[in-house]
Amino acid sequence: MHINDLDTPAVLVAADVVERNLQRLAQYSQKHNLNVRPHTKTHKIPEFAHRQLRYGAAGITVAKLGEAEVMADAGVSDILIAYPLVGEHKMKRLALLSSRADVTVAVDSLEVAEGISRAAVRAGTKIGILAEFNTGFGRCGLPVEAGSISQVQRIRDLPGSNWRGLLFYPGQIMVNSPAAQSMIEWQNAVLAKLMSLLDAAGVEHRILSGGNTPTAYLSHQFSGLTEIRPGTYIFNDRNTVCGGAASWDDCAVTVLTTVVSDSVRGRAIVDAGSKTLSSDSLLTGRCSGYGRILEYPKITIAELSEEHGHLDLGDSQSAPSIGERVRVVPNHVCVVMNLHDKVYEVQGEEVIAEWRVAGRGKVQ
Amino acid sequence: MHINDLDTPAVLVAADVVERNLQRLAQYSQKHNLNVRPHTKTHKIPEFAHRQLRYGAAGITVAKLGEAEVMADAGVSDILIAYPLVGEHKMKRLALLSSRADVTVAVDSLEVAEGISRAAVRAGTKIGILAEFNTGFGRCGLPVEAGSISQVQRIRDLPGSNWRGLLFYPGQIMVNSPAAQSMIEWQNAVLAKLMSLLDAAGVEHRILSGGNTPTAYLSHQFSGLTEIRPGTYIFNDRNTVCGGAASWDDCAVTVLTTVVSDSVRGRAIVDAGSKTLSSDSLLTGRCSGYGRILEYPKITIAELSEEHGHLDLGDSQSAPSIGERVRVVPNHVCVVMNLHDKVYEVQGEEVIAEWRVAGRGKVQ
Repeated sequence: MHINDLDTPAVLVAADVVERNLQRLAQYSQKHNLNVRPHTKTHKIPEFAHRQLRYGAAGITVAKLGEAEVMADAGVSDILIAYPLVGEHKMKRLALLSSRADVTVAVDSLEVAEGISRAAVRAGTKIGILAEFNTGFGRCGLPVEAGSISQVQRIRDLPGSNWRGLLFYPGQIMVNSPAAQSMIEWQNAVLAKLMSLLDAAGVEHRILSGGNTPTAYLSHQFSGLTEIRPGTYIFNDRNTVCGGAASWDDCAVTVLTTVVSDSVRGRAIVDAGSKTLSSDSLLTGRCSGYGRILEYPKITIAELSEEHGHLDLGDSQSAPSIGERVRVVPNHVCVVMNLHDKVYEVQGEEVIAEWRVAGRGKVQ
Repeated sequence: MHINDLDTPAVLVAADVVERNLQRLAQYSQKHNLNVRPHTKTHKIPEFAHRQLRYGAAGITVAKLGEAEVMADAGVSDILIAYPLVGEHKMKRLALLSSRADVTVAVDSLEVAEGISRAAVRAGTKIGILAEFNTGFGRCGLPVEAGSISQVQRIRDLPGSNWRGLLFYPGQIMVNSPAAQSMIEWQNAVLAKLMSLLDAAGVEHRILSGGNTPTAYLSHQFSGLTEIRPGTYIFNDRNTVCGGAASWDDCAVTVLTTVVSDSVRGRAIVDAGSKTLSSDSLLTGRCSGYGRILEYPKITIAELSEEHGHLDLGDSQSAPSIGERVRVVPNHVCVVMNLHDKVYEVQGEEVIAEWRVAGRGKVQ
């Protein structure tokens, strides 16, 4: 089937770009002896997780139990849940999950770790534990200071826990900033402080897990890293490109959309709004708008209603007309995947597969 | 079941608030002799559409064919698709739909109207047509000027079309702005110009459809209006309240969420991020952030990651601790509904029903 035979809006995934992106990270990580544990929130589709594993990934990362369950159902056996799991419902599900997969959970408080420990003991199982540290991003993570170490020791020693090491998220490092190199050096200084605190207390770690997509190919500069958890690298998006971590040719996902109105002067409306592209704004670079139109890169998607993408035709020489289809690289591909029940894999303009986004909407 | 027995995050719909919101609009519209055709994109659930119909709605409005199909499946028989439908896939589905429901489509170009006409003729059916005019919002709609009238005449006379009248969307009117009254007067001047152009050309209309939630209770001030299409009024949200069109007590939907981390000073993290609350920012009023926390109205949801709501504890005297559950009124309830497979209807803190969001994700 040709993509012109698809109704719109539709999410297209370019098979060859995916392959290239997977290959590139596999080569890099082998060269630098880093484990890759891709964050599958980007695609939420077991087939793509299996491709990552075939390219040498050590396991996968997810954010929610529901995503882990979908991946375990599809035979993925080594899963890191990089999120503090809280509450009895989740403890029961975690215990069940750990009976059929090797599960590790990142925690940043004794309280959360104790809940997991109790669940593991009750179920007669062991659950892997990483302690998350805040190395600058300021979201989750224990502070890198002496007071945290006794907490880590208590977490390490909880029954039912398999102590595995440390996790951080280097989300604050802006790869295309003039200060990128000094941000990495500062990050290394924080990590060195953490290591010396842990060494002094005799806390060993087998895993130091960090690394996202923007910093993926700088991972060898982070001292002591054993594992990286990039997600977006498999598809890339406008954020990755404008943030200097990929080129437009590296973007595997586009949204196929149709022009449905051009009645208002200086505007055209496409049938992809925030329900299709999400309202996530561009977080990197100096551009604005809600996506890059491949066929009209100078035309901005200036605003989104839920079902309307508002193209600002500005002083563009040419403009798409009603019925014309264009392809849009979205700002943030992970949230786009979460909005769609299915996506189409393409080779050029031929549809070669349809994939159900099995992990979509797993908020719990 | 008590809401404490639900896992989080979970979307709660307060039954009594829904009832009150429906009742209030029904009373107002009866008093002013206005048809109500609610936009069901807000809830996307047939049960709530049926409640709106029981409260006297003349039919429903949807944005997408997929939403119309879901509602027709559930027995809703009078459906306005307020969106320009383009392309052969949609024409086939539209023809099928029109064989089992009374369907009207809003168009703003002869081109789109001709496609619908051809589909109707081919299927041996008739499809209702409204011509959309741009009365100031600047999204879709023919310009209110003499040149548009011949186009409307041609749209009216197309075979297979049931000409029904006119549609506009008064999205530019800011109800709590000091200029609100002059915006309405200007809107009426535009409508008067449109009517005089149509009268001069002998174009009659049975329907003049306008009205959204912010302007719902000002609809009697719009001259010539026969029908209003509010959506959000059934639930309301932070946008509606901060825009001056409802009070917090009128908000039926809250997101139940759990605090999962408080390791970073001055912050707490809840398990509702943009995958739960959407990244839609607040469009009305002077507040910022991504929702109002009922239990801690002074604490801001300052940032969202996909799975993390970042609470800025600022100088709040009290702060929620790990495991504590809070309820959040979202910025924009329609997009929240679109992110969830199911929602829970509650009476106080008792769960009285679970509803599948059957119209969720219908992007086509």
